[in-house]
Amino acid sequence: MILFQCDYNEGAHPRVMEKLMETNLEQTVGYGEDEHCAHAAELIRKACGNESLAVHFLVGGTQANMTVIAAALRPHQGVIAAQTGHINCHETGAVESTGHKVLALPHKDGKISAAQVERLCREHREDASFEHTVQPKMVYISNPTEYGTLYTAKELEELSAACRRNGLYLFLDGARLGYGLAAADNELDLPFIASCCDVFYIGGTKVGALFGEAVVMSNDELKRDFRYFIKQKGGMLAKGRLLGVQFEALMEDGLYLEISRRADRLADKLREAFVRCGFPMLVESRTNQIFPVMPDAVLKELSGRYGFSWQERVDDTHSAVRFCTSWATREENVDRLIADLEKMGPIR
Amino acid sequence: MILFQCDYNEGAHPRVMEKLMETNLEQTVGYGEDEHCAHAAELIRKACGNESLAVHFLVGGTQANMTVIAAALRPHQGVIAAQTGHINCHETGAVESTGHKVLALPHKDGKISAAQVERLCREHREDASFEHTVQPKMVYISNPTEYGTLYTAKELEELSAACRRNGLYLFLDGARLGYGLAAADNELDLPFIASCCDVFYIGGTKVGALFGEAVVMSNDELKRDFRYFIKQKGGMLAKGRLLGVQFEALMEDGLYLEISRRADRLADKLREAFVRCGFPMLVESRTNQIFPVMPDAVLKELSGRYGFSWQERVDDTHSAVRFCTSWATREENVDRLIADLEKMGPIR
Amino acid sequence: MILFQCDYNEGAHPRVMEKLMETNLEQTVGYGEDEHCAHAAELIRKACGNESLAVHFLVGGTQANMTVIAAALRPHQGVIAAQTGHINCHETGAVESTGHKVLALPHKDGKISAAQVERLCREHREDASFEHTVQPKMVYISNPTEYGTLYTAKELEELSAACRRNGLYLFLDGARLGYGLAAADNELDLPFIASCCDVFYIGGTKVGALFGEAVVMSNDELKRDFRYFIKQKGGMLAKGRLLGVQFEALMEDGLYLEISRRADRLADKLREAFVRCGFPMLVESRTNQIFPVMPDAVLKELSGRYGFSWQERVDDTHSAVRFCTSWATREENVDRLIADLEKMGPIR
Amino acid sequence: MILFQCDYNEGAHPRVMEKLMETNLEQTVGYGEDEHCAHAAELIRKACGNESLAVHFLVGGTQANMTVIAAALRPHQGVIAAQTGHINCHETGAVESTGHKVLALPHKDGKISAAQVERLCREHREDASFEHTVQPKMVYISNPTEYGTLYTAKELEELSAACRRNGLYLFLDGARLGYGLAAADNELDLPFIASCCDVFYIGGTKVGALFGEAVVMSNDELKRDFRYFIKQKGGMLAKGRLLGVQFEALMEDGLYLEISRRADRLADKLREAFVRCGFPMLVESRTNQIFPVMPDAVLKELSGRYGFSWQERVDDTHSAVRFCTSWATREENVDRLIADLEKMGPIR
Repeated sequence: MILFQCDYNEGAHPRVMEKLMETNLEQTVGYGEDEHCAHAAELIRKACGNESLAVHFLVGGTQANMTVIAAALRPHQGVIAAQTGHINCHETGAVESTGHKVLALPHKDGKISAAQVERLCREHREDASFEHTVQPKMVYISNPTEYGTLYTAKELEELSAACRRNGLYLFLDGARLGYGLAAADNELDLPFIASCCDVFYIGGTKVGALFGEAVVMSNDELKRDFRYFIKQKGGMLAKGRLLGVQFEALMEDGLYLEISRRADRLADKLREAFVRCGFPMLVESRTNQIFPVMPDAVLKELSGRYGFSWQERVDDTHSAVRFCTSWATREENVDRLIADLEKMGPIR
Repeated sequence: MILFQCDYNEGAHPRVMEKLMETNLEQTVGYGEDEHCAHAAELIRKACGNESLAVHFLVGGTQANMTVIAAALRPHQGVIAAQTGHINCHETGAVESTGHKVLALPHKDGKISAAQVERLCREHREDASFEHTVQPKMVYISNPTEYGTLYTAKELEELSAACRRNGLYLFLDGARLGYGLAAADNELDLPFIASCCDVFYIGGTKVGALFGEAVVMSNDELKRDFRYFIKQKGGMLAKGRLLGVQFEALMEDGLYLEISRRADRLADKLREAFVRCGFPMLVESRTNQIFPVMPDAVLKELSGRYGFSWQERVDDTHSAVRFCTSWATREENVDRLIADLEKMGPIR
Repeated sequence: MILFQCDYNEGAHPRVMEKLMETNLEQTVGYGEDEHCAHAAELIRKACGNESLAVHFLVGGTQANMTVIAAALRPHQGVIAAQTGHINCHETGAVESTGHKVLALPHKDGKISAAQVERLCREHREDASFEHTVQPKMVYISNPTEYGTLYTAKELEELSAACRRNGLYLFLDGARLGYGLAAADNELDLPFIASCCDVFYIGGTKVGALFGEAVVMSNDELKRDFRYFIKQKGGMLAKGRLLGVQFEALMEDGLYLEISRRADRLADKLREAFVRCGFPMLVESRTNQIFPVMPDAVLKELSGRYGFSWQERVDDTHSAVRFCTSWATREENVDRLIADLEKMGPIR
Repeated sequence: MILFQCDYNEGAHPRVMEKLMETNLEQTVGYGEDEHCAHAAELIRKACGNESLAVHFLVGGTQANMTVIAAALRPHQGVIAAQTGHINCHETGAVESTGHKVLALPHKDGKISAAQVERLCREHREDASFEHTVQPKMVYISNPTEYGTLYTAKELEELSAACRRNGLYLFLDGARLGYGLAAADNELDLPFIASCCDVFYIGGTKVGALFGEAVVMSNDELKRDFRYFIKQKGGMLAKGRLLGVQFEALMEDGLYLEISRRADRLADKLREAFVRCGFPMLVESRTNQIFPVMPDAVLKELSGRYGFSWQERVDDTHSAVRFCTSWATREENVDRLIADLEKMGPIR
């Protein structure tokens, strides 16, 4: 059984593991106040081209989302997100459990637009009973989105401007940011993201680390007292240096982008094979998640040999599913899957 | 600089690291539903002598405390704890952030008694305005406590009986459980703890793992839907197998107790040296935390060479401080500290 | 200026005020444990034909919704509601502020169906990552709905059956229940509602009282400890007898239905006039809320003499607005509005 | 049976009731945006000598406390209070239910001091693990306290200065403020309170109204968006004018102080009688709450004819109890109780 169902089926990239081994018996202070964390933060600030950024390391994505949002909002405020946004769908109501409504908007391939944000803010302002509704205060986007799609530079810039005009924070969930930055059609880089967003994170869990997300903040309001929140929400790792060490490994020598690029290349290869074999994509994207639409009979056959995840029903006999590549995907496994696809298709 | 200030200054025990390396490129499903977690849970159920226990792995102690308590209580209910309890003092109000009051009781060397619990419950029942006060529903204890002390078998049994009589859950925070179980004066074992408590955890972070706490539940009410809570509170590790793998290493071949015993022995050695040199203990205990009372001038001198943590002021010229040993403590460092102590004392 | 914008523009029905005056200097115990509350609860139990119901009096609707929902749900559970449901739209995220997600469903004239509830529950059960999503545990409906529409007996019975099959509580918000029960096309009565719902409330604020909602519970799980929640959520009125006294006045001698019937009759009269004058209704209903669709120019003219509330834009030149009647509406004011409408229409 | 157990055993002062009757059929907009609320707020601003104060009307004390505190604090912040403070003891954990820890301090007759606040803030700042503890951000005091005592002008001024030095808000719970302002030994007036506190409230429920607390804010940070919080926490009364009308009655022509003065005079009369008859006071105070220490046998006898509330056990045979007077207390009832006391004492 070969697993393609997610990008966290393996441990960490060998260079990450090596560095964990090397530093294992070093003595450091706890809670992320050690030199590895300081150094990793420095590397990230450099990569973002901004020395004034605050960088904090958290263990996972839901934790990062919940902690950032709970720290940013007052109790009567909510966070705007796509209906398909991870915080709206797949975090067991973590945001609501901290007291805040997710103001869900219809999406286009997992994305929302500046125009949608403007409209929602205007409607709130103009509502005669505005105090009876949740005040929008933050926009949450993911990049790549849950559909593997990317925001263009223009889209992100416009969202950023809409947020500033309306007094909202812009928060970018970068759980798979590496696969976005390395994609063939990507238009963004870290300095640009850092300048557009009030806060975002660079995902480690899905991009070569055992675990870890580097939260980067440019907005001073959000920086204030943030470590209290990490502790209160259960995210302060006693041996915090484990996060620093891993991000040192990922950010030194371009490892983060290098392994992302490879995963995207394998995804492209697989995507082309799906299409060639007659299985169209649910959405167009060039990152490490692939969403082919396939006949249920074919899926049943494949499921004996490959792990993938179910996405959505398309019609009575077809479903969209998800295959992921990652830094750990072996090319031979991709080739084996392609060979199996070619045996089946093109069919309808 | 030699650090004794906590038991999480290093990484993980070499056998833990080895096992992480060995399994690093295995493919498994995520979120703790893999075979390593299943196997580690099985080892723990065996060690507790009870096949019906639920076992869940969380990343850290505050997270475990907050998740267990939030899952157990209805909104009008509170958790009884010693004033010195970790949930009352050192978790940035994590329990309150989930909506619950900590009902703090005076402590004796970090411990609370069945009689105190009975009294509080009786007072609540007999209060004419009982509905205007928080309903007690859980007792939280730590063992070893924050002062390194241990509950006797009789004390734990009585607490358990008091809880059952009053319809309370008994929750034991075992962040340092290994150092308790291995202590010279310990009276408890895992089967006894599992039979007395509704829920407890076996701490990994401070006892040989990179991170991880194994939450063990005997009460069926608490077991129900617990994984939803892990996810909602941000504690569900994507690569959940990392927790399983580490607990496999710790629970196989008695490693957990073996390394705890060594740490306790080094603590005993150090404790005797402190006393011999004229520095009395703040509290009597035999686990890995040592609380000598020392003149401030001596502390100042020591602080140039050794890391330790400040505990409390004793009088105008003396303070109590904390030195910890751990699985990672090198005997040569203990010996060097003892030599330095002997050069200073006995003095007053 | 004559106000039709809501059903709480005046104080209380004269018989309610009288009774408050009569009892004003009586001495009673506080917090709703007095004889007036006991008597009012008894009257409600009788009207519902069920002696085992628990009855609690709260001050307002948002408070009642929030308190009931927070008491019923565990933290990982959510409440299903129509997108137009009051808890989803007009309570500033009160439900979310207690930690719970509102699982919003598309509506039909403000109503949701048993089939929708079944589908959502089935999808949750069958979702491979169900623990990553909020668990549905309650269905919230309002009757009359926010559009003035009513559930038929069959619809309510089916919703009730769907809830029982799926282990959900059914909660009916009856802020305007009187206007529903008294409507020409109503099929429900209190015993039937009490048998279908786990909890519902009989609205006083909008139906003749100064304030007050009588929460009625048939499900024993919900009854337990409910007064703690009333206190914790700020809803326990010190002079609780004020609620009892008002509901005594409303429930004795059929006052509640009598004044509701009159308001519905005036609404019918007004509705017919709107339609006769060429202003169609946004939705069909027979309760005290009327939603005519009118040209913006006409609305502008009317707004100088009458208060009404804006509902939604229909097209570039038309909007739907809301006119309410209530127990306090004077027939002469209705007649004056009708005369003004007749002067304008039929027009386009 | 004559009730002295609290100051909310009756309805409202006749002049309040009259005004409610007079205005009953007026049409006004809802939610406190009517002219009565505006006028009552204006009267309060005048009485406080500060036109820039924000005034909001809430229904009850727990609701006011919870709403103000939840609006003021970020999630990692807590509120300092006396251990005997109402928010710590008698609100079913309402503050904690909004996510915040009450940082309870030892009290002196229900009061806390500037020195205690300074010490707690200093300890927090100097704590090496300060981020692991709740950040103090507000001081809550009640005046009169739960023991009927009053802060002196100097004490309040010092608390205010300590709060400003440490960046804390000062919040005064004035549920019984009238009885404080009218007391023989009172040193405070409304302008002074308004200048010392960031927020406080003028209690109506216990001082002549059916219900209602007027929250007064001087700090601009607290004013912002406060109506959202009133709505979210369930405190926005649909017929908000009821609060305005009642406070108009209380604040016009000095009614509020006049009825408070009378209640305090009756309390003084009763207090002297208790002492004269050999029943000492638990604490010294001159407001409307009296705490005599009495033999249990005497209490048993009294309890057949008088309602009073139990306060605390003093020794094996004596308890302290509470008798309250209020605006509604009849002098003949006070005289009857005094006569009964004189028949019993001086004894013991």
